[in-house]
Amino acid sequence: MNYYGNPITRLIEQLAGLPGIGGKSAQRLAFHIIHMPEEKVAALAGAILEAKQQVHYCSVCCNLTDEDPCPVCANPNRDHGTIMVVEDPRDMAAYERTREFHGVYHVLHGAISPMTGVGPNDIRIAELVKRMDENVKEVILATNPNVEGEATAMYISRLLKPMGVKVTRIANGVPVGGDLEYVDEVTLSRALEGRREL
Amino acid sequence: MNYYGNPITRLIEQLAGLPGIGGKSAQRLAFHIIHMPEEKVAALAGAILEAKQQVHYCSVCCNLTDEDPCPVCANPNRDHGTIMVVEDPRDMAAYERTREFHGVYHVLHGAISPMTGVGPNDIRIAELVKRMDENVKEVILATNPNVEGEATAMYISRLLKPMGVKVTRIANGVPVGGDLEYVDEVTLSRALEGRREL
Repeated sequence: MNYYGNPITRLIEQLAGLPGIGGKSAQRLAFHIIHMPEEKVAALAGAILEAKQQVHYCSVCCNLTDEDPCPVCANPNRDHGTIMVVEDPRDMAAYERTREFHGVYHVLHGAISPMTGVGPNDIRIAELVKRMDENVKEVILATNPNVEGEATAMYISRLLKPMGVKVTRIANGVPVGGDLEYVDEVTLSRALEGRREL
Repeated sequence: MNYYGNPITRLIEQLAGLPGIGGKSAQRLAFHIIHMPEEKVAALAGAILEAKQQVHYCSVCCNLTDEDPCPVCANPNRDHGTIMVVEDPRDMAAYERTREFHGVYHVLHGAISPMTGVGPNDIRIAELVKRMDENVKEVILATNPNVEGEATAMYISRLLKPMGVKVTRIANGVPVGGDLEYVDEVTLSRALEGRREL
């Protein structure tokens, strides 16, 4: 039943639709928002709308960005001949935090997963293939060390090697079955150092 | 460092400012929002703004509402001579779910808490006193069964009893030290039945 009136109920429903936010949390957040100062509420709603409106894929690496190309692709000090392939922008941010990788990235926005119906055409593999030219010295596959990530790495490796590109995979220093985003910087650095050719 | 560009970083900061949402959750929510369809993002932001703009205190019971008086106060079938005093709109919703209380409410929006500097004038006690007239048969104090809630009940009781109003407190069937919002319906009903005069 609707004990709170429509605007509050609508807000609770909207918040409960977000991942990891249950009914009780949504209620707590809704009442918190209603008690926030007007300008803070406007800032929150504005940030949501702006992020959706201004953020798009980088035309080079498919990273999410509000500029095009993204700051990493536009940086002349980065090694544009070394491309690290990651599943997600957060994985990119995780490698950036190590400060050990000076190449550029390619963000797939997912991994091949027959279980959930995600095929090679559903992620940004075609865009990666288009980037292959004589300037590319190495493609480092830094997809997650789980079944989908390994399958994706194998698929991309088989696609790129006939084109004469050096394809490497980050070492299994990253804990198998984990998620790149949560790995500490030292382990990520070890994995980068120990990369092997496929 | 800002790995994501300003709009995403701003959204992450805004979300991380909400209660119970840490840095990692804020990141996950931000990327979820960016990948949501445009109209769903607009609905979320709209719900936030509308809830803040349209929701205000009921001029009778101080409950949060988008109508005035709120649906409970406007309902002629409710017993307007029995007023249940609660700390929070969610406590009111909890008692509504029991379907055993047919009176009206008064929402204090807090409890007296010297520890955090909340005094009697910081919550809606004056508005409750203003409601006392010859039609009021009973005031049921259903503040939380913790130190602040008990203190608030005692304070209100001492204020209203000299005015000749019958003041009762819900029974200690509710688990001491808990929070009304999380109590099951049966326990709430027991507590209502077992109320004693102060």
